Amino acid sequence: MNQDAYRSRTEHDLGRRLRAFADEREWGQFHTPKNLAMALAGEVGELIAEFQWLTPEQSVEVMSDPEASGRVRAEIGDVMIYLTRLADVLDIDLVDAALSKLEDSARRYPVDQVRGSAAKR
Amino acid sequence: MNQDAYRSRTEHDLGRRLRAFADEREWGQFHTPKNLAMALAGEVGELIAEFQWLTPEQSVEVMSDPEASGRVRAEIGDVMIYLTRLADVLDIDLVDAALSKLEDSARRYPVDQVRGSAAKR
Amino acid sequence: MNQDAYRSRTEHDLGRRLRAFADEREWGQFHTPKNLAMALAGEVGELIAEFQWLTPEQSVEVMSDPEASGRVRAEIGDVMIYLTRLADVLDIDLVDAALSKLEDSARRYPVDQVRGSAAKR
Amino acid sequence: MNQDAYRSRTEHDLGRRLRAFADEREWGQFHTPKNLAMALAGEVGELIAEFQWLTPEQSVEVMSDPEASGRVRAEIGDVMIYLTRLADVLDIDLVDAALSKLEDSARRYPVDQVRGSAAKR
Repeated sequence: MNQDAYRSRTEHDLGRRLRAFADEREWGQFHTPKNLAMALAGEVGELIAEFQWLTPEQSVEVMSDPEASGRVRAEIGDVMIYLTRLADVLDIDLVDAALSKLEDSARRYPVDQVRGSAAKR
Repeated sequence: MNQDAYRSRTEHDLGRRLRAFADEREWGQFHTPKNLAMALAGEVGELIAEFQWLTPEQSVEVMSDPEASGRVRAEIGDVMIYLTRLADVLDIDLVDAALSKLEDSARRYPVDQVRGSAAKR
Repeated sequence: MNQDAYRSRTEHDLGRRLRAFADEREWGQFHTPKNLAMALAGEVGELIAEFQWLTPEQSVEVMSDPEASGRVRAEIGDVMIYLTRLADVLDIDLVDAALSKLEDSARRYPVDQVRGSAAKR
Repeated sequence: MNQDAYRSRTEHDLGRRLRAFADEREWGQFHTPKNLAMALAGEVGELIAEFQWLTPEQSVEVMSDPEASGRVRAEIGDVMIYLTRLADVLDIDLVDAALSKLEDSARRYPVDQVRGSAAKR
């Protein structure tokens, strides 16, 4: 796989594709950060509905169910689409933003103090 | 920037880092798909709260407010963390899942039929 | 309308009816607070999707659209169902809980200090 | 307790109190259905966060934890406040809307066909 092909699978490129998709359809007018945050919340609602009646153990096995696995993958795709689009219109790099928060969390949750505990800080 | 450094900023790598972060803290036991979907919904709730009282026009300018921009970037980072972690435990590639949905949408919303319209299909 | 008929329209009674509905179907086993909170979030996601592409002004007029108004009413009904069911299994009185929070807010947001401002405290 | 005192605890009365609270603060301008749906989603996000790392069994016992029970009650109060306020600005009766949906569900899920099953229809 050459460098270009590789790049075409990254989230940076996904942002450009989604922008082109919206621009071609003249949907930019609807894609304010406020509206995109709502669309993101709507898709997360559909994703969470896939898990609401499953036990935690059943949720671990969800991808071995042919129907549920397709729905879960599709909902995760929808969530990623709106999250990427929101980050793009705000000019935020998704991976950088996540890594910044991960560094914060590493400071707040030192390994020897929190091992095995779900308590919030 | 060499290829390795570039790769370290991709979402593929983010998944690995988050897995290591959780493993070191023995948090894998809490990271069922059910629980991660809930954590994702919780973070999306915090993100949407940043936009709830803004007009659409104010939301477009949110990154020029020094305080709000930092909060929005942090909340987007949190959402990306839980979305990536959820995709990782389900063995779903986030960008692939998004591109599959984008292809569906391209079929369902042909450019000449939907230009400028927000109607759902 | 007599007192009994009146009571039958209150949220106290709604809780009892929903409990009977679940019990008849042996759904109590699924109705843990965790699962009901997820179902509530899923329904709120469907409700928010009704408003995502509307301007604030269009959202004010949503009930004059015959199709959208029916969908919005149905989604609000679903949200109320899961919120009432969740409160019932936790033995929380919804109206009391809301009034307690309203009293807190009255203290935190004195009329002369916050008039016309959406800033959070 | 006389009839008036009883009425003062119903959700009908809650709607009037919340309207007065908003009017005194000149917050009606922010309380479009779009914004209130977002505020509702934000509060549901805070509520779901209370349950995200609990097992279903732990969630059943949440009200016996003095700290968690207070937070859960407060979050449920916040959700009820925004749901009631949204219904009020749309002129929807919450309990009626829920009862309409309950009648639909009774038709879609006949007792003898769905007993003990969480499958969606």
